[in-house]
Amino acid sequence: MIIIGELINSTRRRVGEAIAARDAAFIQDLAVTQAEAGADYLDVNAGARVAQEAEDMVWLVETVQAVTPLPLCIDSPSAAVIEAGLARHRGQALVNSFTAEPERRSAVLPLVARHGARAVGLTIDQRGMPESAEQRVEIALTLVAAAAEHGIAASDLFVDPLVRPISSESDQGGAVLEAVGAIKRESPGVNVSLGLSNISYGLPERRLINRVFLAMAVAAGVDAALVDPLDHRLMACLRAAEALTGRDEYCAEYLAAYRAGAFHD
Amino acid sequence: MIIIGELINSTRRRVGEAIAARDAAFIQDLAVTQAEAGADYLDVNAGARVAQEAEDMVWLVETVQAVTPLPLCIDSPSAAVIEAGLARHRGQALVNSFTAEPERRSAVLPLVARHGARAVGLTIDQRGMPESAEQRVEIALTLVAAAAEHGIAASDLFVDPLVRPISSESDQGGAVLEAVGAIKRESPGVNVSLGLSNISYGLPERRLINRVFLAMAVAAGVDAALVDPLDHRLMACLRAAEALTGRDEYCAEYLAAYRAGAFHD
Repeated sequence: MIIIGELINSTRRRVGEAIAARDAAFIQDLAVTQAEAGADYLDVNAGARVAQEAEDMVWLVETVQAVTPLPLCIDSPSAAVIEAGLARHRGQALVNSFTAEPERRSAVLPLVARHGARAVGLTIDQRGMPESAEQRVEIALTLVAAAAEHGIAASDLFVDPLVRPISSESDQGGAVLEAVGAIKRESPGVNVSLGLSNISYGLPERRLINRVFLAMAVAAGVDAALVDPLDHRLMACLRAAEALTGRDEYCAEYLAAYRAGAFHD
Repeated sequence: MIIIGELINSTRRRVGEAIAARDAAFIQDLAVTQAEAGADYLDVNAGARVAQEAEDMVWLVETVQAVTPLPLCIDSPSAAVIEAGLARHRGQALVNSFTAEPERRSAVLPLVARHGARAVGLTIDQRGMPESAEQRVEIALTLVAAAAEHGIAASDLFVDPLVRPISSESDQGGAVLEAVGAIKRESPGVNVSLGLSNISYGLPERRLINRVFLAMAVAAGVDAALVDPLDHRLMACLRAAEALTGRDEYCAEYLAAYRAGAFHD
């Protein structure tokens, strides 16, 4: 599993304040602790101050990469901000995100291709958010085709089948799990990633819902997830899920995490 | 989900002692607490003292049914013990278990039919324990056919695809999950149940592994599981899993369990 650490997000109050104050130590501590907890990418989002988002993104990329060799997930709805982030990024970044809407993909995909980056594509198109598994799979295939047109291989694409709250529509969990399996079957080589936390919107004990859904998504074949790697119970659940689905031979990672004390609150 | 409470098992030391001492209060407390925690069936196993297993089983059935209206899961490898338990059981019992081995099914299924009971069939045949999902499905179909020959409907049969430890064979978790889905597809109407705990044999933090596997099994379509209903984290995981797979409309059960304080250690 590819773990994308979600904590360096300016919409979180303390992070937004640290970015505004150029408090590098605070941001770098979040980077190092997520890396030590097992993150493979660190998401960086500077969206809280729209007028200076590009400047803040550049500062985040440089500040975070000064203390970790991990690649970053450049998280912005703005192509200009993505471009500014990519220009300063060292190594192969992951761009988060584009959609199947024609303007959005034609704005973002050329940047991804030019910088040899990878990209997260959300299963949204001009009709809006998908309801069913079938709609998600159909849009996923559009995303794969659009990436290919720009010379981006399926293995550099992460399709996100767009998790929606089960509190308002009970069938949304099942629809996403079904879509994960179908996308893996219909588009071999493509990665499927999930932004987990929307699934539990409106319910109590959100972290419980999130980690149980992550376990199910691992069984369905998901490759990557945007999560809080400092959430011990979520990471314990993930290690167990990998061991249970044959992704962890001899349960070696599970046993190492146990011995390191990672399973205790 | 049909929850079979596993705690009244004579191989657990305190339970074995209580049965030997005819300590009805201890056994009845285990029955009532499991019922209150949401059990649909209570497993009763008297196998610790083989020479008097039938006598102990009769005492267990009467002692437990004196304090709860729940049906019991009569758990024994012996047809004579099953028959003694069924004779005293009030309501529709679940017999645990028979296999596809010719002697075993011909000894148990006539008893199940005669008492109008339901039965758990393990996917074991004369060749032994199954390795692959395919073997499990093949044996499951034999179990369904054998039950039908005795006039037992698929809806009264619980096929258990035999969980084996992932510590020795990493592919056993995936094989069982695949078998759950395939059995549900190939034999509509049949129930699939799991005895969970073998999955974690030989690993630390067994309850973590068990509950994560249960969540995956719910997503795969499992109908019933033999579990400890007093394990708060397992039950919380199960409620979340049901909400996530559309088995709990408006997340009503999940919210009720939360309000009742069931999610806290």
